[in-house]
Amino acid sequence: MKRTNHNGTLRRSDEGKTVTLVGWVAKRRNFGSLVFIDLRDRSGICQVVFDENMAEAVKDVRSEYILQVTGVVNLRKDPNPKLPTGEVEVLAKEVNIVNTAETAPITIADNTDTSEDVRLKYRYLDLRRKPLQDNLILRHKIQMIARRVLDEEGFVEVSTPILARSTPEGARDYLVPSRIYNGRFWALPQSPQIYKQLLMIAGMERYFQIARCFRDEDLRADRQPEFTQIDIEMSFVEEDDVFAVVEKLMRSIYKELKDIELPEHFTRLPWEECMKRYGSDKPDLRFGNEIHNISAIFANTEFQVFRSALESGGEIDAIHFSGIADQYSRKTLDKLQEFLKAGFKVKALAWLKKENGALTGSIAKPLSDAEKQAINDEFSMQDNDIVFVIADKPAAARTALGALRVKVAHEHNLIDHSRTEFLWVTDFPMFEYSEEENRWVAAHHPFTAPKAEDVDKLFTDPEHCSSRAYDLVLNGYELLSGSIRIHDQDLQEKVFEAIGLTMEQAKEKFGFFLEAFRYGTPPHGGVGIGLERLTMVLADTENIRDVVAFPTTNSSLDLMSESPNYVDDAQLEVLGIEVKDNKKKEA
Amino acid sequence: MKRTNHNGTLRRSDEGKTVTLVGWVAKRRNFGSLVFIDLRDRSGICQVVFDENMAEAVKDVRSEYILQVTGVVNLRKDPNPKLPTGEVEVLAKEVNIVNTAETAPITIADNTDTSEDVRLKYRYLDLRRKPLQDNLILRHKIQMIARRVLDEEGFVEVSTPILARSTPEGARDYLVPSRIYNGRFWALPQSPQIYKQLLMIAGMERYFQIARCFRDEDLRADRQPEFTQIDIEMSFVEEDDVFAVVEKLMRSIYKELKDIELPEHFTRLPWEECMKRYGSDKPDLRFGNEIHNISAIFANTEFQVFRSALESGGEIDAIHFSGIADQYSRKTLDKLQEFLKAGFKVKALAWLKKENGALTGSIAKPLSDAEKQAINDEFSMQDNDIVFVIADKPAAARTALGALRVKVAHEHNLIDHSRTEFLWVTDFPMFEYSEEENRWVAAHHPFTAPKAEDVDKLFTDPEHCSSRAYDLVLNGYELLSGSIRIHDQDLQEKVFEAIGLTMEQAKEKFGFFLEAFRYGTPPHGGVGIGLERLTMVLADTENIRDVVAFPTTNSSLDLMSESPNYVDDAQLEVLGIEVKDNKKKEA
Repeated sequence: MKRTNHNGTLRRSDEGKTVTLVGWVAKRRNFGSLVFIDLRDRSGICQVVFDENMAEAVKDVRSEYILQVTGVVNLRKDPNPKLPTGEVEVLAKEVNIVNTAETAPITIADNTDTSEDVRLKYRYLDLRRKPLQDNLILRHKIQMIARRVLDEEGFVEVSTPILARSTPEGARDYLVPSRIYNGRFWALPQSPQIYKQLLMIAGMERYFQIARCFRDEDLRADRQPEFTQIDIEMSFVEEDDVFAVVEKLMRSIYKELKDIELPEHFTRLPWEECMKRYGSDKPDLRFGNEIHNISAIFANTEFQVFRSALESGGEIDAIHFSGIADQYSRKTLDKLQEFLKAGFKVKALAWLKKENGALTGSIAKPLSDAEKQAINDEFSMQDNDIVFVIADKPAAARTALGALRVKVAHEHNLIDHSRTEFLWVTDFPMFEYSEEENRWVAAHHPFTAPKAEDVDKLFTDPEHCSSRAYDLVLNGYELLSGSIRIHDQDLQEKVFEAIGLTMEQAKEKFGFFLEAFRYGTPPHGGVGIGLERLTMVLADTENIRDVVAFPTTNSSLDLMSESPNYVDDAQLEVLGIEVKDNKKKEA
Repeated sequence: MKRTNHNGTLRRSDEGKTVTLVGWVAKRRNFGSLVFIDLRDRSGICQVVFDENMAEAVKDVRSEYILQVTGVVNLRKDPNPKLPTGEVEVLAKEVNIVNTAETAPITIADNTDTSEDVRLKYRYLDLRRKPLQDNLILRHKIQMIARRVLDEEGFVEVSTPILARSTPEGARDYLVPSRIYNGRFWALPQSPQIYKQLLMIAGMERYFQIARCFRDEDLRADRQPEFTQIDIEMSFVEEDDVFAVVEKLMRSIYKELKDIELPEHFTRLPWEECMKRYGSDKPDLRFGNEIHNISAIFANTEFQVFRSALESGGEIDAIHFSGIADQYSRKTLDKLQEFLKAGFKVKALAWLKKENGALTGSIAKPLSDAEKQAINDEFSMQDNDIVFVIADKPAAARTALGALRVKVAHEHNLIDHSRTEFLWVTDFPMFEYSEEENRWVAAHHPFTAPKAEDVDKLFTDPEHCSSRAYDLVLNGYELLSGSIRIHDQDLQEKVFEAIGLTMEQAKEKFGFFLEAFRYGTPPHGGVGIGLERLTMVLADTENIRDVVAFPTTNSSLDLMSESPNYVDDAQLEVLGIEVKDNKKKEA
């Protein structure tokens, strides 16, 4: 089909040219004998004018009709500065109605009033909106850059199976019944973890894959049943090598898509320090307000609450905000207190404000002047500043203040949205204690290597045994997780033992994968980068559905195709399965 | 880990350099006090020499151990011309045993004696073979080029769902039971066909995806349960536009990977002519031996068999081969006859040889001299040439001779393997008659557009109604299928009617997809290129498992991970399904 230009690209410099455009009717207005049509294609919108001679040809044309128009580019008398093509318009000489359209059930131009469910049902119409199209194009560009950079670095993209084996740990698998082997099932992979480690054993050395992953999780706003991971694994590496590849990748993406020069290397913070300073393993570094451990001030305190907290192994943590004390009424503070007590298992939130040079607040009375002065000095407090204090078990106090830090920053716009702050959090704990199972379990996965100097803590002090697992945090979001893996069989056995697995049990759980480790496994490690998350940050949206072409609702329904759906009994018959009767009736 | 060079890249020019290599022990030989080790990494193999001082350090080292070696590059006294690194060796100064290995269950270097099943079980070891690694790298490169070219042409890669809706036509779907909605199922997509057409309706204009597809088919040697398609769809296009994109893609791939300059445009042949000349819709053009319709010679024949064939609407087709007549004994010819009668529903195969200037063979007697001379002249027959003749219904005669053409060419090495022959086959029939359903069914899929000039044949002459479906054939393999789609609702209704579907039935089958067509659908078309097939041709292998990292057997088993496998009852319980008792017992 003839088409000389894309609608959104016409400019003043095109004046006088004869062009042929195609596209959808975004808007139609009549002015006396003239008809104005905004013609939309993927590149944008251009105004087309049909004069007295041409108006008849488009008299029946309505929104979302598809036209092919040939005409001359003229300068507009009243330029529209909001539109990139706003200085020009096309005076139609010929028009061909390529296709008609019924009245669309949602408005394309601006449908933000329409409920998201209706927009999801008519996703193909919602996708006609430029912001959504631009997000898909952005996602495409991120993938193109990622592949180019990884290819340059010697990585090979290898496709691993979607029809895979059910894994015994982690989130729930989606299962696929086998027709040929009735009673047996495939599982959709939660990640290509096992396959990529096998590729290292196979000697591929540098693997990547922009891989589809599947988790059958319960409803969460920022998740989809299927998601995408830029999955990377490398042999003969240490953390530095993995970090360098990811940093190069992120620098390229930010430079090419945002014209932002990221630093050569990103800040690193061991998990322990991260928790102390930010009360979170994914701190947003676009603002300060770090947590201070002010226990030392209260070494000899007479304030009973603080003294007993310290005596029972707790600590006194505080966080300081400038110039917002006047916005914390008693009522606001009570609410904040409730929020922390409910969500973070802390006993109380204390505060100290500076007003007209004086320190007031919930702990102004019980503290000595010297103690108050020490807090004042710790934070160089000015008038209208506020300090929040929690005395509790270290983990609880830090986590609660970490949450408070983020909440206050959001509520008072303390975040500089022009900043891009990457942070490597390293040395994650090797284990976490499962109250449910009454034992230590792998915090990451049981193939993660412990730090060399902590190997002897595997049994003597599992709580303080650090691993070689790391996260990359971007503006407070966990962008990726990864680790250096165990490649030594003896060490692997020890780790299994530490989480209470005999080698026999381990073999039953991880079978062929463990066997593979016996035939020459290189040191290796890698990461899985959340592509949707990265795209969301770059697209500046908090809604994951804004970066997925055909998403499901939060309750895993595809409203457009109405799936999952019922299938014929014959389809189940060949699979050798049946839906339980009571389930059928519920439907 | 320190590593200065890749093993396979060392050359004469590296003489004297101190290098650090890592890799797997491919081979170990002792010569007196010297130890020679071939050290393998992804790039290849380099010989490392351990002298008297170093031999002790590697005395326990066996095959597939992983070493890190520092040493000096020396020239070899006896160069090995078979190895790219054959002119040099590394004299080890330091060695670090990075990991040990148990005796591998298969030999890595050359395991072609080992059964494929054993190699599939230990796929991660089989993948250490360079030819297999090179195939995966080739596949990666094809994908990189495809994405780059399509990106340059304005295509956007969009990921479409793997958890999709079960489609009512075509091959069997893999189903995925929903946990949240017990009794309902997702289906894995056989192709992104519906999604890509929806993206055209959404105005994305140029889409591509290197897409995973799934078909639950019965055992076939060249298929896998999951496969990959370079999936392309474009709006506002005719066949020429689609072909130009694919041709550019193929030219780039062949130029960059094979240094072969393909022509600007590939040959095109309408399906009807293709069948006449080659008896196949995927002819291998690397050799000639076209089918000739020699019916005219027999217009007045007295040979009863030919006359009755012609009178009952049949034709006389012949195919000629030079210089191989002496290899067709009576016995060989009988076998050939059986092959054709069994597989192609033809009544008989006739032949004529030229021996010492005379025409002999099965039809030498019944034909007149003039008829024999005419055949001789048609093919300019020389001594030792043979002509095969079939008189039958056109479709049967052509198809049988087409199969014979390929069989003879393979058996007598008539194929020039240095040639690369692409062919567009166009104008496929719109319908094919289903004896089973006793009606005309869509040959491609019911959204394929009929040729404009054949629209009136939809009802009057469906057999001769041509469509805008096309295939691209490469060296006799179907590399891709595609079509220009219907975008006009009236025409769509007519096509449904032609295959005996009321609009109501169509809506029940294609539901939301048909609704989408109502809101402004652009003219569009596209293709799906078989990535594994393309890689197989470029890698010069006939085994699809050679281009898939973790393949299944022909009977859809993953021998490595032993899947599909049995799962816990608890996993089925939450899905609201159960395996039928008799199926359990069979297992």
